[in-house]
Amino acid sequence: MRNYPKKVYLNDEILDYKNAKISVFDRGFLFGDGIYEVMTQKNGSFFYGKEHLNRLSECLDKIHIDFDTTTLPGKIDDLLKVSDIDKGECLIYIQVTRGVAPRKHDFPDHAVPTLMMYALPKKFPGINKNAIKIITMPDYRWHRCDIKMISLLGNVMANDHAIKQEAHEAVFFRDGFITEGSHSNIFFVKKGVVYTHPADEYILDGITRQIVIQLCKDCGIEVKEEAISKEDIIKMDEAFLTGTTTQIGAITQIDDYLFYQDRNVGSVTKKLQEAFLILKNSYKKVIT
Amino acid sequence: MRNYPKKVYLNDEILDYKNAKISVFDRGFLFGDGIYEVMTQKNGSFFYGKEHLNRLSECLDKIHIDFDTTTLPGKIDDLLKVSDIDKGECLIYIQVTRGVAPRKHDFPDHAVPTLMMYALPKKFPGINKNAIKIITMPDYRWHRCDIKMISLLGNVMANDHAIKQEAHEAVFFRDGFITEGSHSNIFFVKKGVVYTHPADEYILDGITRQIVIQLCKDCGIEVKEEAISKEDIIKMDEAFLTGTTTQIGAITQIDDYLFYQDRNVGSVTKKLQEAFLILKNSYKKVIT
Repeated sequence: MRNYPKKVYLNDEILDYKNAKISVFDRGFLFGDGIYEVMTQKNGSFFYGKEHLNRLSECLDKIHIDFDTTTLPGKIDDLLKVSDIDKGECLIYIQVTRGVAPRKHDFPDHAVPTLMMYALPKKFPGINKNAIKIITMPDYRWHRCDIKMISLLGNVMANDHAIKQEAHEAVFFRDGFITEGSHSNIFFVKKGVVYTHPADEYILDGITRQIVIQLCKDCGIEVKEEAISKEDIIKMDEAFLTGTTTQIGAITQIDDYLFYQDRNVGSVTKKLQEAFLILKNSYKKVIT
Repeated sequence: MRNYPKKVYLNDEILDYKNAKISVFDRGFLFGDGIYEVMTQKNGSFFYGKEHLNRLSECLDKIHIDFDTTTLPGKIDDLLKVSDIDKGECLIYIQVTRGVAPRKHDFPDHAVPTLMMYALPKKFPGINKNAIKIITMPDYRWHRCDIKMISLLGNVMANDHAIKQEAHEAVFFRDGFITEGSHSNIFFVKKGVVYTHPADEYILDGITRQIVIQLCKDCGIEVKEEAISKEDIIKMDEAFLTGTTTQIGAITQIDDYLFYQDRNVGSVTKKLQEAFLILKNSYKKVIT
């Protein structure tokens, strides 16, 4: 699905998407010098909105962009109204760059950060029913994957490579260990225990990843933040992806290894998908 | 020096720099999905212009952007005329992105690449007389540094870190070996032999790097494309940076290690600087 949004919030204006233009000297365009965030609106409130906006703020701090994220909820409300989405289900994209300045690598002194946001109406399924096929590839990205940056050429090349092979996602391995997908986290299940890469500088600590770890604890499922080696994939019982739009997606195949036939889903994955659905449906129905 | 150019060549238009704007849906802005090139005009011709444009073309091929670079020289001539530079000495910046499309990681089918170029009048010194101070840091960038991409957050963060410490450039080491600078290549000299990292996927094969290797051969200086370990820096006699705007810049200090006092320059560096000056002054005075 490739649709443009109706409206774009750009700095202090809300514009038709066709008129949303930035200077070619924006450091987002010249250097990929910015941070992004994707969240959803469900039941009329931003699903884990506080956590998403905190992460945006933390990532901006990490790359020394001075930007106040506390005013964003009100701005997003304005955007959603004008976009005819209002309290409807949607995806919200937020990008902040270091701003406009003549091209020179080091940070300019007086640039004003650029804020760009848009919302797309999107109905998410209660449970992600896709039978997800994954390919693995060496993690050739930089070593600060904890920063949700827009310098994403490595990610888009990997994802495109996967799509061209009729897979859904490329999952990376570094030093022999599975890290994460090009825009998702990955979990494994072995003998009832859930495994995922620790939240260090080699992965993005996804909000859905954090939710799933908490859901495991709530459901009495043992969870270990330990990386799984590429060689051990064939010893795993189940595997699933997590992400803001992916939610929890059962993986049926990694490279040539088949986890399930006929769209079966492992019992732990299924339990977490159901717990996630309950969480979504009960999430803050009162709008804050 | 942070100056805007007078004019910007954007797709098929030449615009005042203030009016040069691209869609926020340009994949250059959303994903850092593009390639850039910097070259100079000297003596009325593009200095190693063919080599720069070939590299641009090769890098675009590597990331599967289908763009014809053969028409660029004529377009640059148009840009230089309107910029009141004409045949004057200048720096030329060229950037090509995958074009405008709704945001989705994999490559869109029908996007038209975005071309953005500008020129800045710039007098380059015959010989770079700067006393260059370098700091080293771990090479945390991706593993395809042979691709001259605009996803440069890692590079700009490193360069800014160096500038904040009153150094000129950050030079990376990976697995204990010096690779390159944030926007330059690095050479060492030991007992009359010149060393630089081989042109593999860990460095950009700079045009000035290639010129210097050829100049070594022309001058009867032994040159080895071998990486120097970080620990061996203190065993080196000389070190210098190369780059399109840096030309050949003698390094006086790497971290705490001082190569020279009082702006002295090592004999091999000096010989190469002089040979480079002769090359520049004799380069194709007839405009092709």
